[in-house]
Amino acid sequence: MIRRYDYGTPLLTDAVVLSVEPEKGNPGGITVEDLKPGIRFTLPMTEETQLFGLGQAVRGIDKRGHIYRSWNTDDVLHTENKAALYGSHNFLLIVNPGDTLGLFLDDPGDIRWDLGATEENQIVITSLGGDVSLYLIQDRDPLTVCRAFRGLIGKSYIPPFWAFGYIQSRWGYAGEEDITKVVTEHRQKHIPMDGICLDIDYMDRFRDFTWNPKTVPDPAGMVKRLREKNVHVIPIIDAGIPVDENDPACADGLKNDTFVHREDGSLFQAAVWPGLCYFTDYLNTRCRNWFGDLYRPMLEAGVDGFWNDMNEPSLFYSRDGLEAAWKEIDSLKDRNLGQSEFWALKRAVDSLANNPEDYRAFWHDMDGQKVRHDRVHNLYGAGMTKAAMDGMHRFDPDRRFLLFTRSSYIGSHRYGGIWTGDNCAWWSHLKLNLQMLPGLSMCGYLFSGADLGGFNNDTTGDLVLRWLELGIFVPLMRNHAALGTREKDICRFSRWKDMRNIVTLRYALLPFLYSEFLKAVDSGTPLFMPLAFLYPGDTVACHTQDQVMLTEQCMIAPVYEQNAVGRHVYLPEDMLMLRMRSCTDMDACVMEKGAHFVPCALNEALLFIRKGYQIPLVMHDVESTVDLRAGLSFTMAGWKDAQPYELWEDDGEHVSAPVISRTLAPGRGADNRSGLLR
Amino acid sequence: MIRRYDYGTPLLTDAVVLSVEPEKGNPGGITVEDLKPGIRFTLPMTEETQLFGLGQAVRGIDKRGHIYRSWNTDDVLHTENKAALYGSHNFLLIVNPGDTLGLFLDDPGDIRWDLGATEENQIVITSLGGDVSLYLIQDRDPLTVCRAFRGLIGKSYIPPFWAFGYIQSRWGYAGEEDITKVVTEHRQKHIPMDGICLDIDYMDRFRDFTWNPKTVPDPAGMVKRLREKNVHVIPIIDAGIPVDENDPACADGLKNDTFVHREDGSLFQAAVWPGLCYFTDYLNTRCRNWFGDLYRPMLEAGVDGFWNDMNEPSLFYSRDGLEAAWKEIDSLKDRNLGQSEFWALKRAVDSLANNPEDYRAFWHDMDGQKVRHDRVHNLYGAGMTKAAMDGMHRFDPDRRFLLFTRSSYIGSHRYGGIWTGDNCAWWSHLKLNLQMLPGLSMCGYLFSGADLGGFNNDTTGDLVLRWLELGIFVPLMRNHAALGTREKDICRFSRWKDMRNIVTLRYALLPFLYSEFLKAVDSGTPLFMPLAFLYPGDTVACHTQDQVMLTEQCMIAPVYEQNAVGRHVYLPEDMLMLRMRSCTDMDACVMEKGAHFVPCALNEALLFIRKGYQIPLVMHDVESTVDLRAGLSFTMAGWKDAQPYELWEDDGEHVSAPVISRTLAPGRGADNRSGLLR
Repeated sequence: MIRRYDYGTPLLTDAVVLSVEPEKGNPGGITVEDLKPGIRFTLPMTEETQLFGLGQAVRGIDKRGHIYRSWNTDDVLHTENKAALYGSHNFLLIVNPGDTLGLFLDDPGDIRWDLGATEENQIVITSLGGDVSLYLIQDRDPLTVCRAFRGLIGKSYIPPFWAFGYIQSRWGYAGEEDITKVVTEHRQKHIPMDGICLDIDYMDRFRDFTWNPKTVPDPAGMVKRLREKNVHVIPIIDAGIPVDENDPACADGLKNDTFVHREDGSLFQAAVWPGLCYFTDYLNTRCRNWFGDLYRPMLEAGVDGFWNDMNEPSLFYSRDGLEAAWKEIDSLKDRNLGQSEFWALKRAVDSLANNPEDYRAFWHDMDGQKVRHDRVHNLYGAGMTKAAMDGMHRFDPDRRFLLFTRSSYIGSHRYGGIWTGDNCAWWSHLKLNLQMLPGLSMCGYLFSGADLGGFNNDTTGDLVLRWLELGIFVPLMRNHAALGTREKDICRFSRWKDMRNIVTLRYALLPFLYSEFLKAVDSGTPLFMPLAFLYPGDTVACHTQDQVMLTEQCMIAPVYEQNAVGRHVYLPEDMLMLRMRSCTDMDACVMEKGAHFVPCALNEALLFIRKGYQIPLVMHDVESTVDLRAGLSFTMAGWKDAQPYELWEDDGEHVSAPVISRTLAPGRGADNRSGLLR
Repeated sequence: MIRRYDYGTPLLTDAVVLSVEPEKGNPGGITVEDLKPGIRFTLPMTEETQLFGLGQAVRGIDKRGHIYRSWNTDDVLHTENKAALYGSHNFLLIVNPGDTLGLFLDDPGDIRWDLGATEENQIVITSLGGDVSLYLIQDRDPLTVCRAFRGLIGKSYIPPFWAFGYIQSRWGYAGEEDITKVVTEHRQKHIPMDGICLDIDYMDRFRDFTWNPKTVPDPAGMVKRLREKNVHVIPIIDAGIPVDENDPACADGLKNDTFVHREDGSLFQAAVWPGLCYFTDYLNTRCRNWFGDLYRPMLEAGVDGFWNDMNEPSLFYSRDGLEAAWKEIDSLKDRNLGQSEFWALKRAVDSLANNPEDYRAFWHDMDGQKVRHDRVHNLYGAGMTKAAMDGMHRFDPDRRFLLFTRSSYIGSHRYGGIWTGDNCAWWSHLKLNLQMLPGLSMCGYLFSGADLGGFNNDTTGDLVLRWLELGIFVPLMRNHAALGTREKDICRFSRWKDMRNIVTLRYALLPFLYSEFLKAVDSGTPLFMPLAFLYPGDTVACHTQDQVMLTEQCMIAPVYEQNAVGRHVYLPEDMLMLRMRSCTDMDACVMEKGAHFVPCALNEALLFIRKGYQIPLVMHDVESTVDLRAGLSFTMAGWKDAQPYELWEDDGEHVSAPVISRTLAPGRGADNRSGLLR
């Protein structure tokens, strides 16, 4: 049963799809304080309490012991002290033995989550605005609560089948010449690939919905030529529209009044990549639809995948902010610069970007209701996601498009996927990638992924290889990198053959992964979950932070340490381990419940299968998802005497395509320590 | 045998104490390239090669797979991508099966160490200046090479015995009132303590060798009053002397011409905490001695411990740099600020601190030889360390003083300890603390430690507690925190009793730790070392990055993950595990060789003892090291039928104090899984 309690004046956020009548009074077991403004919820914990959820957030799977903040932020340094990242996913799971409380704050404003950081045994959640619909779901076990929550927020976005293929990306590919070279080299080396991203470089002066005439003189031709190689082109779209009446989008937006205003009615201006920009009011249906229709010419050119960026919105500086900074700088200059003036100068410049003042400086027209931005800040990216997907579906209602976006709020999981933003080429971010998966799954973001190999900083070959060994299990599998960093597509490394072989594993696993993805969308079961969900009586399993269940059938435990020859793995029960080097080179052995050090060479990926299960694998080389669509023969990998596997498939292209389920009979399976895959 | 090869014109650095004649030609197995300027050494690796050493550096114990830089840097964010920290310790150990090469670059300039990051199987070391004495030590095993290296660089500094006690510190304690309050509360709660640090707040306007007359009106009285409570006061001293002729140190330095000059003969000025400062030429004997004598009034006031800071030197901005930045800012202001101007403004301000230009702008007079700073940059902090310790010994030649410093270069390990700088309240920095210990030990920095609980960011109670559980084994055991962060002395947490109990363990272990410290100084054996040193045939042990040998007798494996109920531990042989909750509450059990998940509650610290050993413990409460000096009775903890323990002691106060060795007979010991400590 889902209970709802309203505080203040909650806004319509599009987060939930079920209608739940608000109850009167306050929920039991929660202390509610009216802070005027703001509202605070305090809940007790015991030493045993575990906390899960919160989606896109730093640190371990168990979120206990840190202060998080819901405030979508373009922060390039995802260190463990950070409170907020790009998305706000206000769903927290409070798990006690035999009792789980799921708590969702439908409030797109600023929220603090003190999860036992200040007081060890206390959860203190503070909504600074105080306009909240609080949803509570209580049950015996976390899986039931998760499923109920996913029912509340509606079914997750399903991308086209090809989007599950390997995607290459880099900030710096200027246009057709660059990406064709990359694609050609991948094809020559038989590295499977289904998509290639274009970052802001492809645009004309970083302007949305333009192509650089020099580097992409023939967009439709480019898209067609690459599709002939079974590669989809995925251009980026940013949130801001340049302040320039010669820019068609700007001119049209001005004509139609689709940009956000300041209180005095003037247009809000802040700089992003193209310089000063206007910002579409995605929270207004008319404006949102206007923006969505801007995608049409690119769709007509054959593009069927996009990524939306800078939509927190990220602001380098606002026009007003810069003017104020100059005033401050001028006032400093006349003084003999001492310590305090120096710090003031630094502050004046450093505080320009993403300044809270700026987020209080403009207003939305939420279909008639004027709302200041900070009150609904976390909805902005979600609005852009909806704008884009609605626009695409107006262009072709039945076609599935790829869309992933940086900023999000629960609700947008129905319209697109997310990537987890600008991580670093850090081993700790490979681990963070793993640890973030269960939270994202619980919050409905099934189609998500991190930049494999790391976005910022120069990566190394071993890090890319190890990260690919996690990436093969994650729905969005993209290798992406920042401008100026070391080239890091697979072809650039001496170990490219090992990397290639790992990518072939992705395609070997893909029918299984896709089938499980469809089931997870349908049932609301998380695709990834903490071991605690399945082994509640096993204290060690419950507190294992570096292994993750991939559905109820498998467990993943990638190596995330440099110079490691393997890793420690805790098995809560006997499991069958697949040690995989390529789609045609793998072996299996049964391992006993307990703690193990599992050797794992640089060129090996591990998958652990639970008792009673077999999973289907495609044990032959393919170079794109196109080759995975017809007449596949599966090898069943797993336990002897396993139950049959229900394979879910659809045509992978159409919204209306029916899901077809078929039963795959188990193979012989393995049942001993030395058993090869049969 | 130690071989030496000279390139360019090596400078006298004081790093080595043995005279080794340079060989002619180039060493075999190393490709040497003259880059004019600069020199490059290239060495091959196999897949099996492991790399250790480099002292103060980020990442794992095995340094393979990253680019490091020798360039002493005040960097407040020790993320895993960082190349340089505060100290340059140019000793690398290249370990292959049955063959270890120790390589020391005596070159205090800028050096890059590409350790298989760019090319997986290649070490590329580039000295940008090219003035290098290259020392090579080759032998079968790493321990022998380490001992030989430590013989080359001379014996490590030994602090007074009390300095091994628990030390409380915080940037923000203004003076006597603040620290007396902290000390009193610790004593009331029976939390052992031997020292308290004063950060820059105690000074008059952040000026070296001054006391704030309001907060420390009676320095000698304060020192005396705290010593009566068995607590030593440890003030901070910074590298810069304020540009102000009314400042006595400044006036005296100007009179004696002890500050560094620019090429045109004018004095170099850059801002640090007191504003614009001059910088003592620590590389000149006369100037160094001048600075060392500035400590005398504080020594006369009874101070017997100092920490030296900001001695990379850290520069907020130089006078010239700021002028140039203003010019740049002015030129931007007149333009309609677009993207590129905005980034230029940011760059102009962000690049002021620790700017390479500034390090090229001043010169040293190395006892007659004029040398531009950048060529000897990494020697600056070491010079200040020597200045301070020499000054103290001119005051009292036979007294041992506590000195630890931030910036260092091998050689300074003979004059003082180091702390590892401004870390963060991050779990990953608890792990980094552990992982840095072996490298520091190999490079002679036996008396060292990290800020327990983390310097920057707000910490949590569980992080402090877990960090203390590592800190009890580390020679410098200091709880320190940055201004503005959460108060984090033990008394501030609900779990203060658990924390107290863990600190009592430090005192229980102290006679053993001090004895082993003296032995490590004498023999050149690292106090901490990788498992690879003792288990070269065990691949898993060799690649274990989160367990460390504490001497040849013990292994430590602290819990460094939040919300953990224990951790995975790999035992390369049967070991006896001590599970310790306080100095009087611990038990022991024998654990078999192999992988284990070891439960470890928040209030427990673990110590693993190798077969055949027992170690002495003091199993009764003491409140300071004073109580550890007389008539101690030891409880022997370890294996049944162990060898006797040789306890080394001295008076802990005097340089000339003889070391007395006595044999402690083994106790009954434990020999089974459930054995209590007997």
